[in-house]
Amino acid sequence: MAVNIIYVGSKPVMNYVLAVVTRFNEGNSNVTIRARGKAINKAVDTVEIVKNRFIPDSKVINIDIGTEHMNNNNDEEINVSTIEILIEKN
Amino acid sequence: MAVNIIYVGSKPVMNYVLAVVTRFNEGNSNVTIRARGKAINKAVDTVEIVKNRFIPDSKVINIDIGTEHMNNNNDEEINVSTIEILIEKN
Repeated sequence: MAVNIIYVGSKPVMNYVLAVVTRFNEGNSNVTIRARGKAINKAVDTVEIVKNRFIPDSKVINIDIGTEHMNNNNDEEINVSTIEILIEKN
Repeated sequence: MAVNIIYVGSKPVMNYVLAVVTRFNEGNSNVTIRARGKAINKAVDTVEIVKNRFIPDSKVINIDIGTEHMNNNNDEEINVSTIEILIEKN
């Protein structure tokens, strides 16, 4: 099963909504939306907009949260929260 | 089962971490962390800090996301994403 991951970052939310809808229109039955840190709420926005406005028969199958260890600009190790939302289309 | 909900808002994340840890120390076996909009990533941070640094034998039981309809300051109706994370202590 090809893993379909959309990484949510600093672009406007509709960029990511379009990316998810496109993946479904290409025939994929599920898409994973992934984000870290401050982009986490944009990942949730993306899924909610896709479900409520674009693909009403899609639903959230699973949500995982976690922590990643990264180095910041001063090369100090920091912890960043992550979220991974699996959404499926019937 | 008494519902234990911590609403995450604009305070520093450690306020909410302390609130969750206190609920567990009072003998509750599970706590729900709830947030909307931009506070969603702080809710995820809260859970991750509780799990990684304060209560290692706690785990996430369930995560729900959704949309709430609210009125903004100009009394226009807006949609806001929500998250609800249920965390349990063994």
